[in-house]
Amino acid sequence: MCKVEKLQMLYEGKAKKVYKTHAVDQYIVEYKDDATAFNGEKKGTIVNKGIVNNQMSAMLFRLLKEMGIDNHYIETLSDREMLVKAVKILPVEVIVRNVAAGSMAKRLGVQEGKTLKIPVLEFCYKSDELGDPLINDDHVEVLELATKKEISKIKSYAMKINEILCEYFFMKNLKLIDFKLEFGLFEGEVILADEISPDTCRLWDVDTNEKLDKDRFRRDLGNVEESYQEVLRRLKN
Amino acid sequence: MCKVEKLQMLYEGKAKKVYKTHAVDQYIVEYKDDATAFNGEKKGTIVNKGIVNNQMSAMLFRLLKEMGIDNHYIETLSDREMLVKAVKILPVEVIVRNVAAGSMAKRLGVQEGKTLKIPVLEFCYKSDELGDPLINDDHVEVLELATKKEISKIKSYAMKINEILCEYFFMKNLKLIDFKLEFGLFEGEVILADEISPDTCRLWDVDTNEKLDKDRFRRDLGNVEESYQEVLRRLKN
Ligand SMILES: Nc1ncnc2c1ncn2[C@@H]1O[C@H](COP(=O)(O)OP(=O)(O)O)[C@@H](O)[C@H]1O
Ligand SMILES: Nc1ncnc2c1ncn2[C@@H]1O[C@H](COP(=O)(O)OP(=O)(O)O)[C@@H](O)[C@H]1O
Ligand SMILES: [Mg+2]
Ligand SMILES: [Mg+2]
Repeated sequence: MCKVEKLQMLYEGKAKKVYKTHAVDQYIVEYKDDATAFNGEKKGTIVNKGIVNNQMSAMLFRLLKEMGIDNHYIETLSDREMLVKAVKILPVEVIVRNVAAGSMAKRLGVQEGKTLKIPVLEFCYKSDELGDPLINDDHVEVLELATKKEISKIKSYAMKINEILCEYFFMKNLKLIDFKLEFGLFEGEVILADEISPDTCRLWDVDTNEKLDKDRFRRDLGNVEESYQEVLRRLKN
Repeated sequence: MCKVEKLQMLYEGKAKKVYKTHAVDQYIVEYKDDATAFNGEKKGTIVNKGIVNNQMSAMLFRLLKEMGIDNHYIETLSDREMLVKAVKILPVEVIVRNVAAGSMAKRLGVQEGKTLKIPVLEFCYKSDELGDPLINDDHVEVLELATKKEISKIKSYAMKINEILCEYFFMKNLKLIDFKLEFGLFEGEVILADEISPDTCRLWDVDTNEKLDKDRFRRDLGNVEESYQEVLRRLKN
């Protein structure tokens, strides 16, 4: 029972479906339980992940809005659905890292868990085919993925979002290790889009360093569903 | 018969040997005929490559010196040897690209041979073990590979070197597709070091686009030795 009518599905990604609505500038995002890792090589299901990610994203998009970060969130429609501004997604994945982990730790030979002396910003070219390769500002420009002005807006947004989220998660006894953002263009302006969830953030318990994010799925650490629920529980407290 | 006495070998790399001299701030670089590709997976010999690379590097270092680019070259000692300033090499490979080719074309799905609308600067972490991964400015900073000031000096040097070399090679009917530089610290200042040769530059004939560089070895295109000699012949003309 959804307040807004869902029209034709525009695209189905690895974690979400996007639908048109009667308003041309609004889409419905539906969060799935499907989980993938390692560029789609590993596939599975995380029961009720879609519900957690929809709720968590909504909470964080509202928080960021209050803190001055324009984003696509309009309202929650159901357990798994939110109404969002229809944006043209910029094909650049924006990663912010506070602590070395995952691909960065491996590529650069840095011990996972090492705190970085500054937050590290990375751009990856959003292309499933190419495996989302790391790129730099010059690549963004020659591939015409975004303009210089958009890139500078994205950089300052990303740093501010990192500050806001670090502080917020810390209050919930969670350490924000790293996270991935996607931005899009709405009425010519860069706004934050996509999702913010345990699929797109690494979150470690402040006291124990227990991983409470998609690495539990990637690395077969067990308690996958429980960890997603635990993060949501802490955010609601 | 060398004017300067060679003392103990400091290190042997894939293409050169570096020796101490009686002057603590001067080394002798000896250019070998050894060729490697694909992070050392492919190995071979290019007869007289060492002689070509020694002469070509000397010519280009002299040219760059005249144009205001400080570099390690002091003088040529023999067919395969040059005397250089002893620097502390910064572990950052600096790549400048005018036309898409090689790893960039492949990683980003760009057609080899496509002219880039701006020269693209790339940094790679110089680490045989890690396979010289692409990095960005933030990685340079957190890995403490160079200071911010050094990086900004390197960037402006690299752009200026690109302009000088493009123009120079063009006069010799060669198109400078891309090249790799290494910089080092001498008396606290960043200077250009290492070599500039068909091992480290992609050079295509302006009229035919024939490759006249190490790609002939990498890709088994034949006429490897002849191409190195042809580049040297053109530079001497
Ligand atoms: N507000 C929005 N407008 C349009 N597209 C969006 C919006 N928010 C997210 N998207 C896109 O929805 C698609 C589906 O999401 P997802 O399943 O996470 O895809 P992916 O497989 O690319 O990770 C992605 O291409 C994402 O960029
Ligand atoms: N002026 C210099 N002082 C000290 N080391 C140098 C200088 N010029 C080049 N080198 C270093 O000499 C080493 C040998 O060169 P090379 O055989 O090309 O090594 P590699 O296998 O790392 O490519 C490299 O580590 C290079 O950085
Ligand atoms: Mg996604
Ligand atoms: Mg070398």
